[in-house]
Amino acid sequence: MSDRYRDFTSSPLGKLLVKNLGLPSPAKLERYEAGAPLVSGTVGLGGRGRLAESLAGILETVGIDSAEVAGAPEEGQRFKGLVFDATGLTSSADLVALRDFFTPLLRSLETNPHVVVLGTPPEQVSGAERVAQRALEGFTRSLGKEIGRGGTVQLVYVAEGAESAVTSTLAFLLSPKSAYVSGQVVRIGAHGTTVAGEVADWERPLAGKVALVTGASRGIGESIARVLHRDGATVVGVDVPQAADPLQALMKELDGDWLTLDITGKDAPQRIAHHLEEKHGGVDVVVHNAGITRDKKLANMAEDRWDSVIGVNLTAPERITRELLDQGVVNAGGSIIGVASIAGIAGNVGQTNYAASKAGVIGLVDSLADELEDGITINAVAPGFIITQMTAAVPFATREVGQRLNAMSQGGLPVDVAETIAWYAHPASSAVNGNVVRVCGQMMLGA
Amino acid sequence: MSDRYRDFTSSPLGKLLVKNLGLPSPAKLERYEAGAPLVSGTVGLGGRGRLAESLAGILETVGIDSAEVAGAPEEGQRFKGLVFDATGLTSSADLVALRDFFTPLLRSLETNPHVVVLGTPPEQVSGAERVAQRALEGFTRSLGKEIGRGGTVQLVYVAEGAESAVTSTLAFLLSPKSAYVSGQVVRIGAHGTTVAGEVADWERPLAGKVALVTGASRGIGESIARVLHRDGATVVGVDVPQAADPLQALMKELDGDWLTLDITGKDAPQRIAHHLEEKHGGVDVVVHNAGITRDKKLANMAEDRWDSVIGVNLTAPERITRELLDQGVVNAGGSIIGVASIAGIAGNVGQTNYAASKAGVIGLVDSLADELEDGITINAVAPGFIITQMTAAVPFATREVGQRLNAMSQGGLPVDVAETIAWYAHPASSAVNGNVVRVCGQMMLGA
Repeated sequence: MSDRYRDFTSSPLGKLLVKNLGLPSPAKLERYEAGAPLVSGTVGLGGRGRLAESLAGILETVGIDSAEVAGAPEEGQRFKGLVFDATGLTSSADLVALRDFFTPLLRSLETNPHVVVLGTPPEQVSGAERVAQRALEGFTRSLGKEIGRGGTVQLVYVAEGAESAVTSTLAFLLSPKSAYVSGQVVRIGAHGTTVAGEVADWERPLAGKVALVTGASRGIGESIARVLHRDGATVVGVDVPQAADPLQALMKELDGDWLTLDITGKDAPQRIAHHLEEKHGGVDVVVHNAGITRDKKLANMAEDRWDSVIGVNLTAPERITRELLDQGVVNAGGSIIGVASIAGIAGNVGQTNYAASKAGVIGLVDSLADELEDGITINAVAPGFIITQMTAAVPFATREVGQRLNAMSQGGLPVDVAETIAWYAHPASSAVNGNVVRVCGQMMLGA
Repeated sequence: MSDRYRDFTSSPLGKLLVKNLGLPSPAKLERYEAGAPLVSGTVGLGGRGRLAESLAGILETVGIDSAEVAGAPEEGQRFKGLVFDATGLTSSADLVALRDFFTPLLRSLETNPHVVVLGTPPEQVSGAERVAQRALEGFTRSLGKEIGRGGTVQLVYVAEGAESAVTSTLAFLLSPKSAYVSGQVVRIGAHGTTVAGEVADWERPLAGKVALVTGASRGIGESIARVLHRDGATVVGVDVPQAADPLQALMKELDGDWLTLDITGKDAPQRIAHHLEEKHGGVDVVVHNAGITRDKKLANMAEDRWDSVIGVNLTAPERITRELLDQGVVNAGGSIIGVASIAGIAGNVGQTNYAASKAGVIGLVDSLADELEDGITINAVAPGFIITQMTAAVPFATREVGQRLNAMSQGGLPVDVAETIAWYAHPASSAVNGNVVRVCGQMMLGA
């Protein structure tokens, strides 16, 4: 595919738009390669609060070098990432500490820098502290839009008592695994446990674990299967009977297992539960990836288009989740992961059915996050414009807008969604619960 | 100002974008004129739940004609608005009722139609019902983007017990007062009381009430003062000493009162509280409208730019609110109203300071919504691109993008913000608490 956006940005109108909107040119995004260090450089640490003192030690656990900085960096000092502990900010007047830390450092960043601001969930504090903590969201989302050069900026709200449960999240957000995740707000320990599960092997955190992935034969599902396999999991792929061949081929390659069925079938939840219980003694990771679109404006929406989209994208995940939980098939410490969508957050023309189904997936996360027991978590990803075979068929202008109207001026890759799911699935992410994280390059589209 | 967007949409790229994104051409938006009926036409009613039976009576209270509809409309029947009670939907399979109601009716809508879907706050129910109620958000946001012809679509979550408190909200959302409000989610009765205050005169609901408006001398503040005066309030305008002349002229015209001071002054909260108490015996409506921008990328942000923006936009409203509450100057049933911004939700290049301040305003709403007593409420508006003297100075391309990247393809007017504030200030809106409603024509920009 030729990059027609670049051609456009050389035109008079394009130049004007780029200049006035401050749109960055698409930067090359570094992505994680198995076996590589998580961060190829130093992470600068600053701020004061509940986390500052332990950050260097936490990062060392996962092999990330860090250095405390205050004020201007030393001559020649460069940073691949920054972490600022803002949990100590208790009033709006305190917020200037953000400027004081970041302003002198922003010119010392390497390409593809990863920035994390740590705060306290606003709903867990009150008065002036709550205001200051909530203000962090406007700050980080703005910095995400102006950092440029393929950089990412996130806000991580860490609940009181969850300070030691941040390791897997920092490892994800400071590394190229989160290349296409930016402008996001993550909560740790805000629902369920505040304690991180134990990890025997940080290189293969899912060793000995079983992961169910629906819609696993191709596209994003295939990438999810590959990344979970890389992390040590035994993957059980599910897809429709028509996709049996590619599904089997992939699962054989990954030393996994497979099951062909229509997830909307009446007995599908029971069949899946039975298979996982009989063959694998349960399941640790459940990824509800299978999804369809049947776009039509509502004025022309036939009932079958409505029903099939709601059925596959929402009712099936609901029923399968319920059956797996009711039958006790999900192992303690397991994770359930939904796939929502930007459309489910912002709405989209021609997608009343699809957006309702994806907003419903967010509802499923909300409804279960405080109910699940035995350290089981539920979270969702909300992909933006991800480049797949399906999107290659999208008309030029829609594709270009989808790809460019984000802070990174480019579409994401299936692996970006898969890495986010692997972070949720990580045993050390047991305090990461009830989150919906967009994988969208901080797309402009939103609610 | 010539409409260069129209010129662009006639160009080859423009046509392609319009066609493929389904962007509507800018429709003329009807706006409310004092004394006119709220709705010039019939509102179609449908759905089943806690509200359906009382809707016709509620709308009659404010002079709105309605008719129940199920299935295709009668020959020649036209609707100016639609209200669907979705509180009875308890599972994802039930959602098809949305399609069954809306699809046959969408071609029977007049121009500038106003659509409202009523649901139950998801956080107040559980399991499959929570999922279904949460799904409504994706549905309404999609319909808002495709309804076209200057139409609006909102989702109103009505808490159990708050069924009789929806009148002022339906009057606002079904009338041209909400011309530029679309794709929004409103909660009634979810924080504080579920009971509506009494209204002696629906034409002048604020008769006998006192309204403080900061930054009142021009622009959006002037419009707020005019609309609150229209609704019967005695307006006390506040602005900086440099704006004393236009402030006095306006307040004399509106038979109001004024106070010139810098709201960031050390004793400003005390002076305002004292003035309101001595001269007016208290205040019923507090509108924190004053705000400034001092844009600069964070890498180049001087400390005074940070401090002045945080000081005016966030710390001053916090201090004034606290003083008025602590001194008991806010009367029972009063309303406190903040002015946030799209930038506070989505972030913006060059606005880390401004976006932090505006996100903090949302934090102020969150922090007080459950704490306020005596039926006092707090809510905020979040304007998108509103056409003012200030925006006339914005560079062409930025202005065009700001104006067009919304479902209505146009900028809003100051009166659109003012009408939204008047809805919050309405005595019958006492169960409308803790909301942040965007006045943005359903702008694409979001978080």
